[in-house]
Amino acid sequence: MTTTHTTSYSPPYAIPHSQQPAASTPENLIEHYQNVRRTTEQLCQPLATEDYVVQSMPDASPAKWHLAHTSWFFETFILVPYVPGYAVFNPAYDYLLNSYYVTIGVGKPYDRPRRGLLTRPTVAEVYEYRRYVNDRMLAWMDRLDEASWRSMQPLIELGLHHEQQHQELILTDIKHAFSINPLQPVYAPSSAERASSQGLDFRKPAPLQPLSWKRFDGGLYWIGHDGHGFAYDNESPNHRVFVEPFELASRLVTNGEYLQFIEDGGYRQPRFWLSDGWTAVQEHKWQGPLYAFKQGNQWWLHTLTAVRPALMDEPVCHISYYEADAYARWAHARLSTEAEWEIAARTVLTLCHTILGHFVEEKNLHPISANDASQSDELLQLFGDAWEWTQSPYSPYPGFAPATGALGEYNGKFMCNQFVLRGGSCATPASHIRATYRNFFAPAARWQFTGIRLARSI
Amino acid sequence: MTTTHTTSYSPPYAIPHSQQPAASTPENLIEHYQNVRRTTEQLCQPLATEDYVVQSMPDASPAKWHLAHTSWFFETFILVPYVPGYAVFNPAYDYLLNSYYVTIGVGKPYDRPRRGLLTRPTVAEVYEYRRYVNDRMLAWMDRLDEASWRSMQPLIELGLHHEQQHQELILTDIKHAFSINPLQPVYAPSSAERASSQGLDFRKPAPLQPLSWKRFDGGLYWIGHDGHGFAYDNESPNHRVFVEPFELASRLVTNGEYLQFIEDGGYRQPRFWLSDGWTAVQEHKWQGPLYAFKQGNQWWLHTLTAVRPALMDEPVCHISYYEADAYARWAHARLSTEAEWEIAARTVLTLCHTILGHFVEEKNLHPISANDASQSDELLQLFGDAWEWTQSPYSPYPGFAPATGALGEYNGKFMCNQFVLRGGSCATPASHIRATYRNFFAPAARWQFTGIRLARSI
Amino acid sequence: MTTTHTTSYSPPYAIPHSQQPAASTPENLIEHYQNVRRTTEQLCQPLATEDYVVQSMPDASPAKWHLAHTSWFFETFILVPYVPGYAVFNPAYDYLLNSYYVTIGVGKPYDRPRRGLLTRPTVAEVYEYRRYVNDRMLAWMDRLDEASWRSMQPLIELGLHHEQQHQELILTDIKHAFSINPLQPVYAPSSAERASSQGLDFRKPAPLQPLSWKRFDGGLYWIGHDGHGFAYDNESPNHRVFVEPFELASRLVTNGEYLQFIEDGGYRQPRFWLSDGWTAVQEHKWQGPLYAFKQGNQWWLHTLTAVRPALMDEPVCHISYYEADAYARWAHARLSTEAEWEIAARTVLTLCHTILGHFVEEKNLHPISANDASQSDELLQLFGDAWEWTQSPYSPYPGFAPATGALGEYNGKFMCNQFVLRGGSCATPASHIRATYRNFFAPAARWQFTGIRLARSI
Amino acid sequence: MTTTHTTSYSPPYAIPHSQQPAASTPENLIEHYQNVRRTTEQLCQPLATEDYVVQSMPDASPAKWHLAHTSWFFETFILVPYVPGYAVFNPAYDYLLNSYYVTIGVGKPYDRPRRGLLTRPTVAEVYEYRRYVNDRMLAWMDRLDEASWRSMQPLIELGLHHEQQHQELILTDIKHAFSINPLQPVYAPSSAERASSQGLDFRKPAPLQPLSWKRFDGGLYWIGHDGHGFAYDNESPNHRVFVEPFELASRLVTNGEYLQFIEDGGYRQPRFWLSDGWTAVQEHKWQGPLYAFKQGNQWWLHTLTAVRPALMDEPVCHISYYEADAYARWAHARLSTEAEWEIAARTVLTLCHTILGHFVEEKNLHPISANDASQSDELLQLFGDAWEWTQSPYSPYPGFAPATGALGEYNGKFMCNQFVLRGGSCATPASHIRATYRNFFAPAARWQFTGIRLARSI
Repeated sequence: MTTTHTTSYSPPYAIPHSQQPAASTPENLIEHYQNVRRTTEQLCQPLATEDYVVQSMPDASPAKWHLAHTSWFFETFILVPYVPGYAVFNPAYDYLLNSYYVTIGVGKPYDRPRRGLLTRPTVAEVYEYRRYVNDRMLAWMDRLDEASWRSMQPLIELGLHHEQQHQELILTDIKHAFSINPLQPVYAPSSAERASSQGLDFRKPAPLQPLSWKRFDGGLYWIGHDGHGFAYDNESPNHRVFVEPFELASRLVTNGEYLQFIEDGGYRQPRFWLSDGWTAVQEHKWQGPLYAFKQGNQWWLHTLTAVRPALMDEPVCHISYYEADAYARWAHARLSTEAEWEIAARTVLTLCHTILGHFVEEKNLHPISANDASQSDELLQLFGDAWEWTQSPYSPYPGFAPATGALGEYNGKFMCNQFVLRGGSCATPASHIRATYRNFFAPAARWQFTGIRLARSI
Repeated sequence: MTTTHTTSYSPPYAIPHSQQPAASTPENLIEHYQNVRRTTEQLCQPLATEDYVVQSMPDASPAKWHLAHTSWFFETFILVPYVPGYAVFNPAYDYLLNSYYVTIGVGKPYDRPRRGLLTRPTVAEVYEYRRYVNDRMLAWMDRLDEASWRSMQPLIELGLHHEQQHQELILTDIKHAFSINPLQPVYAPSSAERASSQGLDFRKPAPLQPLSWKRFDGGLYWIGHDGHGFAYDNESPNHRVFVEPFELASRLVTNGEYLQFIEDGGYRQPRFWLSDGWTAVQEHKWQGPLYAFKQGNQWWLHTLTAVRPALMDEPVCHISYYEADAYARWAHARLSTEAEWEIAARTVLTLCHTILGHFVEEKNLHPISANDASQSDELLQLFGDAWEWTQSPYSPYPGFAPATGALGEYNGKFMCNQFVLRGGSCATPASHIRATYRNFFAPAARWQFTGIRLARSI
Repeated sequence: MTTTHTTSYSPPYAIPHSQQPAASTPENLIEHYQNVRRTTEQLCQPLATEDYVVQSMPDASPAKWHLAHTSWFFETFILVPYVPGYAVFNPAYDYLLNSYYVTIGVGKPYDRPRRGLLTRPTVAEVYEYRRYVNDRMLAWMDRLDEASWRSMQPLIELGLHHEQQHQELILTDIKHAFSINPLQPVYAPSSAERASSQGLDFRKPAPLQPLSWKRFDGGLYWIGHDGHGFAYDNESPNHRVFVEPFELASRLVTNGEYLQFIEDGGYRQPRFWLSDGWTAVQEHKWQGPLYAFKQGNQWWLHTLTAVRPALMDEPVCHISYYEADAYARWAHARLSTEAEWEIAARTVLTLCHTILGHFVEEKNLHPISANDASQSDELLQLFGDAWEWTQSPYSPYPGFAPATGALGEYNGKFMCNQFVLRGGSCATPASHIRATYRNFFAPAARWQFTGIRLARSI
Repeated sequence: MTTTHTTSYSPPYAIPHSQQPAASTPENLIEHYQNVRRTTEQLCQPLATEDYVVQSMPDASPAKWHLAHTSWFFETFILVPYVPGYAVFNPAYDYLLNSYYVTIGVGKPYDRPRRGLLTRPTVAEVYEYRRYVNDRMLAWMDRLDEASWRSMQPLIELGLHHEQQHQELILTDIKHAFSINPLQPVYAPSSAERASSQGLDFRKPAPLQPLSWKRFDGGLYWIGHDGHGFAYDNESPNHRVFVEPFELASRLVTNGEYLQFIEDGGYRQPRFWLSDGWTAVQEHKWQGPLYAFKQGNQWWLHTLTAVRPALMDEPVCHISYYEADAYARWAHARLSTEAEWEIAARTVLTLCHTILGHFVEEKNLHPISANDASQSDELLQLFGDAWEWTQSPYSPYPGFAPATGALGEYNGKFMCNQFVLRGGSCATPASHIRATYRNFFAPAARWQFTGIRLARSI
């Protein structure tokens, strides 16, 4: 790893206003509702009926479950409590489609690892359910007076952000299902045309930006949601943290860099690993990232668009927290804390005022090498491409209070045994991400688009 | 249990010729091929595409796997070795569709419990595969000269019997998949019309035949396949066994009789059970047959045609060997040995010359109460309705030699830790069963149509 | 394998009287009681206190559990029901020391795989318990009148045979515990003196007898216990079986012969194996017998007396049924049925009138090569040395009725998923074995002294 | 829960010097070495030989393993590298006694959950090993020149603190082993005399102090080891944290208070629990603290000294993080962060200059009710009695650098999936604890003396 130059940032004691638009109008939100709901279905267009059914591992869910569950969310948290006379589509769905809310409805939800054993409802029935819910949501939103609108808007926005989370999961879950199939199906078959039109054909067109270190001063910073625009409850309250001076790498770690770690015996030497990580390496026989496999001397990747050679300049992804942490130790660095990451993100946003990154809308569906200057030329890939593991366990912010009612289960009850990830990925909708966004997964999870940005203390 | 009268049989030292037709003509067999292959697909007609995909437990397989595997059998054991220039449909199928033949092909087959994780090949592709194999099988059979015909006929018949076994599995596997779905789908929805036209509507039209005991003399008997007509290798050689005098119950044990066992604490008292059986009761929390559940005071059944109250006069089915054995002990009786059963079956066939019973062609898809006299009035339900657990572990007959090559794996390598069942069921094709037929399952298996016929020593 | 000559036996339709002494006198039995009880304790003399405590795998039990359980057996089945005023030593022992009798006492016994987690009772307390029970047993036996004696004698004999079974288990269980200890302790340390005094020092003094085949005619034979002398309930009733002509190998399979199987890829080729056996090979990564390991080109054995090189002429032992069966298939032979074995044993006993073999009293504690002519020169090692796996699943004999009461659980409830072994081993007390004795273990069990005698059909 | 009054503390920006004595003289340390080593053996005096052997659950270790491992630590990290000509006691011990150091010695240590399967080395051999190591350590320490002394002292101190950790584990592990034994053995049998001499006999002599809240101002505080006296690497570096104003409860939660939680359905209502916690409740069927069981209406406890009724005023202990967290949520409070706890502890130490608390030296071996005023009258039980779960995941302090070499594995590699506990317990040696001490366990662990102190934000 080469450090070419260093740039220094000072703490932005003045917090920039949220980059998101101010409270949207009813018309905007209704349109946004239609867009988000339509997008979910468009993401499923490449699937055969059979593809909607399976659950290729306990953490994943069938695509038809995602389609149905996101509708159940609107039905359960809006239509049933707030729309007089609403008739539920099918009373049995409450049991089948509840993900983990134990303080409502029929109690213990249908057993999660068994979602893929259900052939019914059929895909056609699920789409009918979506139409049924959409019709009633739209009719109801249309009729809302202004006062009701103000009180209901956060709930509608929550439902849409919830659905966007599941959009990403639809992609990562089908990627896993395809990856275990010896017939090597892909989500969106790559054509020579599409590849060449993008200048792709597995050679990178422009040189990878060299890795440099961006310096941030220590001090007392504010992090967390400041109340402007939508945020999940776990991003609040806005609060102060004291941070020592630190540096962040200018871009994500690449396949080529990660390969050096592998070839240096990274997966064979326990000294790089957390104890639980080393146990995971041995138990799962990890020898490289998920979806990466070696044929002869060549590393290949299962991607959503092709089974193809790994590009050395692409960001490494589909690695666990344990692997990210071990790589960082090998590289004489560490992962950032979530506070450090958010300080950096706020700094970038203060400078460029808008979130730039490679998101799902580009339909690349894989991280792209940091080879152009379209983002900041200083701190690349902070948003999009790959979720960045931080070294911060997922814990409540000081003074955190979960939402009331069953929706309080959305985030708070998972604040244990997970690590925070930041920044979104190539499978995240652009309108879903923000600087304060706290994603979280168990440290052994690998099926999300998860990558590494290095940090170091000074 | 009441014993009304006893009839005595003497040992038929002269073995009746096989009840099956003599070696069929090429035309007959080609027509039979077409019938069997068509029947498999007809059995799948009620399924939605989603229903073809799942594997609701490790012992079951997805319907589309059954459809494909039976074609792979013809492709692998006939088309590839015997048809010059045959091009395999898809080389990757060999790995995916091999059930358990480890001495051929690519070696270790695709992991059985993970068959339900594969969305591809799609159902449409599987049907295309069947057409491809059928076209080539029919063209090849059409061209066979007489000498080739004689040598190939046993292999073709084996392929068809193999497919008939999978027809039964398609039904039992989809029954399991439907049974675990809270939406309670059924394979063939029952209509009021269909029910009333059969005089069904959950009341039995004619009185149940009382249980009586049929006596058989002890002595030296021949059992096993005598060489006429088709048989699996495990039915040979024909050999002598010495049998003590015994009695067989005149019909299967009914739901009503089994319910008395349950209500007498059958599932709570270890003294009725084999040690492994009692362990299974506790581990799986068995409280009654598979697919039976109690609501209030009423026992209900998941059947392929309805979720409906259990009829007291129907044969009990979907019970394990352990339960059959425990019931028999509770009833001061025992299960028959397979030799005893075969002696009885040969006796019946000597008298009536043809196999009578309720098979899959009736489309009842559930055992029927022994309430009519259409079979023998002496030993009812010996064939069809429900497979009868015997107390005989599945072992080789003296002098048994498995078929040569990979087909030697068909039966022989399973002769361990299983018990023999006899007589076929309501899901068995009528042309598939014979008096010497040895079915076998692990003693804890319950998802087949398995029932109980009592026996006792004298 | 070389076949040197063949001797033929005719069926001994006249069954020889049991080789055991006629009903013993009270004095004999009391002396036998004292001997058996003392022997158990003598077998434990080489153990350190720590050795009494552990349970190195679920199938094994701690030595102190064996010592206590065998006393509990006398207490529970004799002292408590038959000795007025008997005060139990410790009421809590009933729960701790019950092995598997679920129809008596406090119900579900203490969880078997957790026996090694109990530090108390201490070894000293267990020996005190033994003394307590012995004192009361001896006092009571001394006082019995003749009528009582006749009715109680079978129960006392059962208790002693039960204890002898546990004597063998004490040895096999401690062998396992020592084998997993990296410090390689041995039960009875071998001294140079002891080795040289026996002419041992790991070279065999006399040539191995070549393997020949002994022929037996087919026909109707009686097998099972004929009522003379003690037998377990599972050896009854005496009954007829029809047997085809067969041959038995003249001696057990040796390490040298088994090594050829290994070197011929026996553990790598599924075609030799039952399906469940092949699964076991892969799951447990078996590459040779239990306690055998390879260093360089030399095979070594953990034995009770030393960790030492394997002798090529010794019988192979500590192999599962699966391995015995696979070896036999590789050798173009098979295992015998238990009827065939018993026919052979009765023939031998008819000729020589007494059971000869290498038993525990010799204190060799390992099978010995068939290199002398001290037994019959025709059918060597039939008794002693190593238990011989038969191909017979452990099933009830026709008309089998278990003992009444809890003792009916002794054998009958295990007649499922096990295979019969015959003939005793180097760890069996000589007075414990007989021609009708049916030992049984699960087909994957390897920690007993289990070996192979080949058979073949003619 | 009643809040009687509130006292306020201001942040002690001036950090008090460590309360521990300044660097000890060689004489002091040699004496301390002898004391600590002797204490370990004295703690084992009540054990029978059998008690030293078992491992009653995977997290525990046999007492003889603890005795040996602590000696191996001195042998491996001091005698072997620093004492010329030192001959290891037994080369095989390196494999058996290495706990988890993978970067030294023979590599992968002996499998942890199988420590209880080893009967050898015997207890006597282990004590001989301890003498061997002690003799050589004392001889070597005696000879050290002053320069060597300064460089070696930290390592000797580390070895002694390591041994003190294992002293606590010896007690908690034997407590578990005794608790699962139906004979209910105890470590130190309580006598009526001993009980009455302490005024114990299960009624508390003085009233429980009511729970009040102690207030601490928010601000920027220093926490972590300041370099004076011994500390583990994980307590460094000393660093600043920003803390919001908070309150700590004046004492630990009692059995009586916890019982209200239980009776209010605490273990039946998922809304109080973290998701992983609720899963643990259901999986393990938790209904109360470990070692607590209900007979009729009375709660009983397994303690090290007796199986006796639970005292309502005693601190609740043997609860998991999940239970502590759920209790706090039920009580409308939360657990403290480790920074908050340390701030409070430093405040207390600033006031009273010495660590007061109920530690192992008192031989009470169970937490005692906060019924006297011998500590501060403001913040009781902060040290001793029961380890206090904090809500802080165990993570590296900013700038943390593990020790070099294998000793770097001591703490750092466990910084994942664990939570920090503070303050020591009734089983901790008094000289082992300090305000910066970070203990850590997995959130489901219950076999340590773990309790609850509530906190709340203001």
